[in-house]
Amino acid sequence: MRNEVAPVRHGTMRERNLAVVLGEVTRRQPVSRARLAQVTGFTKTTVSSLVATLKDAGLVKEDGPVRGGERGRPATAVSVNGDRVAGLGLEVNVDYLAACVLDLGRRIRHRHIVAAANQGRDPERVIAALTRLAEQAIAAAADQGLSVAGAVVALPGALDRMRGRLRTAPNLGWSDVAAGELLEAGLPPLPLPADYDNEANLAALGELWFGDGPELGAYVHVSGEIGIGAGIVVDGRVFRGAHGFAGELGHVVVDPGGAPCACGGRGCLEQVAGQEAILRAAGIADATATSPASPDGPLSALVALLERGDERALTAVRRAGESLGQALAAAVNLLDPDTIVLGGVFSTLAPWARPAAEAALAGGAGVVRGSPPRMTVSRLGGDAAALGAAALVVERVLGDPGKLLTVARPTAAPAP
Amino acid sequence: MRNEVAPVRHGTMRERNLAVVLGEVTRRQPVSRARLAQVTGFTKTTVSSLVATLKDAGLVKEDGPVRGGERGRPATAVSVNGDRVAGLGLEVNVDYLAACVLDLGRRIRHRHIVAAANQGRDPERVIAALTRLAEQAIAAAADQGLSVAGAVVALPGALDRMRGRLRTAPNLGWSDVAAGELLEAGLPPLPLPADYDNEANLAALGELWFGDGPELGAYVHVSGEIGIGAGIVVDGRVFRGAHGFAGELGHVVVDPGGAPCACGGRGCLEQVAGQEAILRAAGIADATATSPASPDGPLSALVALLERGDERALTAVRRAGESLGQALAAAVNLLDPDTIVLGGVFSTLAPWARPAAEAALAGGAGVVRGSPPRMTVSRLGGDAAALGAAALVVERVLGDPGKLLTVARPTAAPAP
Repeated sequence: MRNEVAPVRHGTMRERNLAVVLGEVTRRQPVSRARLAQVTGFTKTTVSSLVATLKDAGLVKEDGPVRGGERGRPATAVSVNGDRVAGLGLEVNVDYLAACVLDLGRRIRHRHIVAAANQGRDPERVIAALTRLAEQAIAAAADQGLSVAGAVVALPGALDRMRGRLRTAPNLGWSDVAAGELLEAGLPPLPLPADYDNEANLAALGELWFGDGPELGAYVHVSGEIGIGAGIVVDGRVFRGAHGFAGELGHVVVDPGGAPCACGGRGCLEQVAGQEAILRAAGIADATATSPASPDGPLSALVALLERGDERALTAVRRAGESLGQALAAAVNLLDPDTIVLGGVFSTLAPWARPAAEAALAGGAGVVRGSPPRMTVSRLGGDAAALGAAALVVERVLGDPGKLLTVARPTAAPAP
Repeated sequence: MRNEVAPVRHGTMRERNLAVVLGEVTRRQPVSRARLAQVTGFTKTTVSSLVATLKDAGLVKEDGPVRGGERGRPATAVSVNGDRVAGLGLEVNVDYLAACVLDLGRRIRHRHIVAAANQGRDPERVIAALTRLAEQAIAAAADQGLSVAGAVVALPGALDRMRGRLRTAPNLGWSDVAAGELLEAGLPPLPLPADYDNEANLAALGELWFGDGPELGAYVHVSGEIGIGAGIVVDGRVFRGAHGFAGELGHVVVDPGGAPCACGGRGCLEQVAGQEAILRAAGIADATATSPASPDGPLSALVALLERGDERALTAVRRAGESLGQALAAAVNLLDPDTIVLGGVFSTLAPWARPAAEAALAGGAGVVRGSPPRMTVSRLGGDAAALGAAALVVERVLGDPGKLLTVARPTAAPAP
C-alpha cells in the first residue's frame, strides 16, 4: 500500500473530482489516463493523482495496455476494480429473507434466499435471522477478498429511510418496528451508513441492473405479493415522491364504490387484483393454509388450475389483469413511462393476465401519447429487491467514492 | 471591459466551475470571494478568475462591503447582476397571447397579455402576432439596459420540444404546426436556442417562482381551460416522463364505462370536469358563444350563477370537484406530492369546487401516507405559463453560465 495519498476533505473539490474521474472510468473502461484528462478537462498530473487515490482505495485497477494514448501509443488501461470492494443487499419479505453480495462490476458474488414464514412473527426474531444472513454474506465476501462497503435493506412497507424504522407493514402485521436499530446492533460496522428502502423500489432497481436494463427507458415495475406496489424508475433513479410513498399502484381506484379497502378508499386495485382477491375469486378457499415457505406457495394451486384451463380461475385472473391495466392507464397518463414491467405475482400470472392488462391499458392510455408503453415480464427471481439493494450500494460507491475514502481514513494520510 | 478573460471551452472543467461559483453566488448573495473559496473548495485565485469572467458577462456584480472576509474584515460583496441579462417567456393559449421579461433576479421587467381568439385560427397568423409581442418585449428589455439571453415558449398541446413542433393542440384545433420554425424565422437571433414546452408544465413552474414557492415542496399543479392538464414539480424541476406527456390528469378515468373521450377511453376526468362539461351540466347551453377574448370569458356566466346560489350550477361544480379529487387521489398514490395547486378553471371555481375535491381526495389518498396533501389555489393570473417560461430561461443562465459565455465569445479571448 502506498501512503502518500492526499487526504480527502468531505465536500471539497477533490472529492467531486474523484467522482468525476471514477464516473468516466466506469463509462469508458478500459481507459487511459490521457483520455481521462481529455474528457474531464483535468491536467494529466491531476488525473494521475486522482487515479492513484482511487487505486489505493481498491476502486480502480490498472491492467494491460490500451490504445488511446497520444499519437496512438499504447497506454496503461484504468478499469473499475471488481475484486476489492462490494455492496451488500438484504431483504425482509413475507415469505423469505434474502442476502446478496455484488462486486463493483455488479457481478453476483453471493446470493442466499431462505424461506421464512415472517407474517405475524416477532420482528426481533426476524431481524436476528436477517443479521445472521448478513454476517454469512460478509464472511463469504471476505473469502473472495472483498470488503463490504455498505448495506441497503429492502423492507415491505412504509418506512423512515434514514433510520430504517418500519412504520407499517400490513402484510407482515408489523407496525412501528425499529428494524434499522435491531439490524445495526447485530452487524459489524461497515464504512458507509446502512440505508433502507421499500422493496417495491428496490425490486424495480434490480430490474435495471439484472433484467432488461437501460432499454427499459423510464419504467414502472409492478411488484408485490399480497399487496400491489410499483417502483418508478426514471433516468436510472427511483422516483420516490415527497415522502417516499410514490408508486402506491395498489390503491389506485379501479372500481369507484367497490369493496372497501384498508386504506379507507373503495374499489382499490388491491381489492380486485391483489393475490388474496384473485385466489378468492378463483375459488381457492384457504389460500393461506398452503405452505407460505415457498416463494410461489399460495400461487401454485392457482397456476395448476390455470394450466388445466379452469374457467373460474381463468376469469379471476383475466379480471385482475383488466383492473391492473386500468390502474396502469392512470399511471401512464400521469407518469408517461416507456415500459411497464410485470413483476411479483403478475410475472407468475402473466401468461393469463397480460392480454387483458394490455387491452385495458391500450384503451385508456390516451391518444396524445400515440401508443401505450410496451409491457414486459420480469425474469428476476424472488430476491429482485435484494439484488437491487446491493446494486444501490455499488452505485453509491461509484457515484461518490470520496465518501468511502473520507470514512476509510478521516485525516490519516499526510499531504504529499 | 477587461480583455484578459480565459476562453471557455464547452464541457470543460472551467465551464463546470463557473456554474459552481454562480450557483453559490445565487444561493448566498451577497457573498465575499473568501467565502466562495471556502464553500467551493477552489483557491482564492481561481475564485477571482471565475468571478471576473462572470462579471464581464454581466452575470454578477460587486456592490459594497460585506462581513465574511478573513478575520471579520469587510470584503467586497458579489451578487447576481439583475441589470444586464434577461429571459423571455412567451405563451400561446386558446384565448390570449402573452410575453414576459424577467431579469436574473426574477423581477418582472415587462408583462404583456393580449386577448386573442386563437381557436381555429390560422397558426401562421397566430405565431406572427406572437413574434410581434416578442419583438416588443425584447425592445422593452433593451430600453431597460437588458439583453435577452433566450426564450422559452409555452404551447397548449403535445409537442416536440427540441424543434417546437406542435403535434396536436385539440383546443386550438391545430395539428402538426411548426410553431418553432415560424417563430424563429421572425425573431432576431438570441444567444441561447429557443425551447418549447407544454403550458401545463410552464404554468406549474410559474407557481414555483411567483406563487407559494419552495414551501409547496413537491407539487401537482392542475391547469387547463378547456382540457385539464397537470404540471408535476419535484425538487424545483418539472417531471416530464419519457416523452414529455406526464401529467395528463384529464385522461385519468374517474367513471369507468362513462362517456367516451376523444382519447379513446371512457369516463376520463375531462368528460366530467372539463370546462365544457361543467358548463353543460350547469345548463349554460351556448358557452362558446360568450366572448372568448376575455380570460374568464366562458366562465363568467357560470360564476354569476354560483354566486347567486343556483342549485344546478352548484351541483355541476361540486360534481366536477369530486371527480377532480378522485383523479388527484390516483395522482397522490402514484406521485406522493406535498401539495396540490388548483390553477386554471379550478382556481376560478375553487370556492365551490374545492370542498368536494378535498373530501374525495381525503377518501382515496391512502392510509399509508397518513394524511392527504394540502390543496391550495393559485394566485397567478392567466399568464402563469409565460412567467414560468421566462423563469426557466433565467434558471438556465444561472445553472449553466458557460453556455452563454461560449456562445458570446467562441474562442475570441486569448488565454491569460
